[in-house]
Amino acid sequence: MGAKLIGIVAPASRLEQSMVEAVRAVARAMDPAPELLFHPQCFLSSGHFAGDDEARARAFLDVANDPNFDALWVARGGYGSARIAESVIAQLSAVARQKVYLGYSDAGALLGGLYRAGCRVAHGPMPADILRDRGETAVARALGWLCRGDSLALEPSLDPGVPAAAYNMIVFSQILGTPLEPDLTGHVLMLEEVSEHLYAMDRTMFHITSTPSVRRVAGIRLGRVSDVLPNEPAFGETEEEIVRHWCEVSGIAWLGRADIGHDVDNKIVPFGRSPYPSRAR
Amino acid sequence: MGAKLIGIVAPASRLEQSMVEAVRAVARAMDPAPELLFHPQCFLSSGHFAGDDEARARAFLDVANDPNFDALWVARGGYGSARIAESVIAQLSAVARQKVYLGYSDAGALLGGLYRAGCRVAHGPMPADILRDRGETAVARALGWLCRGDSLALEPSLDPGVPAAAYNMIVFSQILGTPLEPDLTGHVLMLEEVSEHLYAMDRTMFHITSTPSVRRVAGIRLGRVSDVLPNEPAFGETEEEIVRHWCEVSGIAWLGRADIGHDVDNKIVPFGRSPYPSRAR
Repeated sequence: MGAKLIGIVAPASRLEQSMVEAVRAVARAMDPAPELLFHPQCFLSSGHFAGDDEARARAFLDVANDPNFDALWVARGGYGSARIAESVIAQLSAVARQKVYLGYSDAGALLGGLYRAGCRVAHGPMPADILRDRGETAVARALGWLCRGDSLALEPSLDPGVPAAAYNMIVFSQILGTPLEPDLTGHVLMLEEVSEHLYAMDRTMFHITSTPSVRRVAGIRLGRVSDVLPNEPAFGETEEEIVRHWCEVSGIAWLGRADIGHDVDNKIVPFGRSPYPSRAR
Repeated sequence: MGAKLIGIVAPASRLEQSMVEAVRAVARAMDPAPELLFHPQCFLSSGHFAGDDEARARAFLDVANDPNFDALWVARGGYGSARIAESVIAQLSAVARQKVYLGYSDAGALLGGLYRAGCRVAHGPMPADILRDRGETAVARALGWLCRGDSLALEPSLDPGVPAAAYNMIVFSQILGTPLEPDLTGHVLMLEEVSEHLYAMDRTMFHITSTPSVRRVAGIRLGRVSDVLPNEPAFGETEEEIVRHWCEVSGIAWLGRADIGHDVDNKIVPFGRSPYPSRAR
């Protein structure tokens, strides 16, 4: 995407200062190297959040509405995007629609509303992924896509002819019916999950696939489901059987697995039609 | 409500045989004593559930569509009602609308659909509450209301002139926009929660209060929030501050607390207009 100056803000949980240098090191190793600006708000603290709602919204707008930034990169997940998304989106200026927004997990609440507002958004790795084992590969993938449009960074099933979107399952479920729900008619919907019980995932898939607007998607792909919490007794169905069950009940096409998840291999899924050819079919 | 024969089914998790005698003992101590029929399905096991979806749906219909039963009492929560609710509701006969349905927590998914289908439903204690300390008081409260219409069993803020409904927060969130969502226009909506992180409760309240249909309720009351899971770092707002925040953001009236929750003091909330005067204002 040719990004030269990337602004990093934290609409949910706060970033540790200790992560910054490792992320900058990945950027410096690129040629040409992008400039990363970590907004000071990333390091604020207000209970669960990286600063109160007003501070997080203002920081987001500082980057979104500044024409010097080519991209806004969400620092990390946690929880908090839904609390500021409507206020942020109402205050976007025209230049906000000229840049790219990248993040995943909790950030999905913002991405949905931004996509609906006509912005270019993508699901993909965040700076805090640097903390994972081999985390620099995830960070390099995100920067490679933001700065050079690396097609290897893209989720491999993406078809340039079919729009797509990717979400954490419970985050997607809890924007349905709200002003943050994007119109995903005809889109391939990729869903991943982390740190949930399988019974809760089944309930969330009931909600998602029973929502009339979601029944207009082209189909569902399941990303990785990691750190599954214990189910007592054992749930009796695998994560894939759960999603296939609800696809069958709802008449939504089951399209297979997706190469996304809360891990270092998490690939990039630009919302809408992907501007880049995929590496594989 | 004058119930003489009460059918007990388990649309979610299975009941232990060992609970049956203690529940029967509470019923026997009443005058007149109701007859309790525990459907054999209550004790089936299929992974997470008390029998597979078909067995649970069939058992529910066995009781709902049989004119001999005055009430259907949901055995316990867990998870599973959403998986069978639409199929069950599509197969209800006219006699199903002559009886009362009582349960809470996961059962809310069924209660919502049944209420929408014109049935008389209520939030209130279930047989499995017998396992709580002083659990017989919860069971006696439920039977006292089912058999004699005890007004002391009712949630004390209920106003005969204003319809009401009561739900577990995440269960309510995950029926919104689905065929199980009841029309709660003008209703007092009571919400309780158990075993969730405060950040997840905040996200759920975002979803609930951002849903246009919910903005038509008369107001929200907060029941008890128990067994709160740890939040790292501390969330920074109490359960009541969270609900008041989202009431303020959404313009929904905050009406105060409600005497419901996952505990022995859980009171009964008939959906719609309560047919009985409350004990206090």
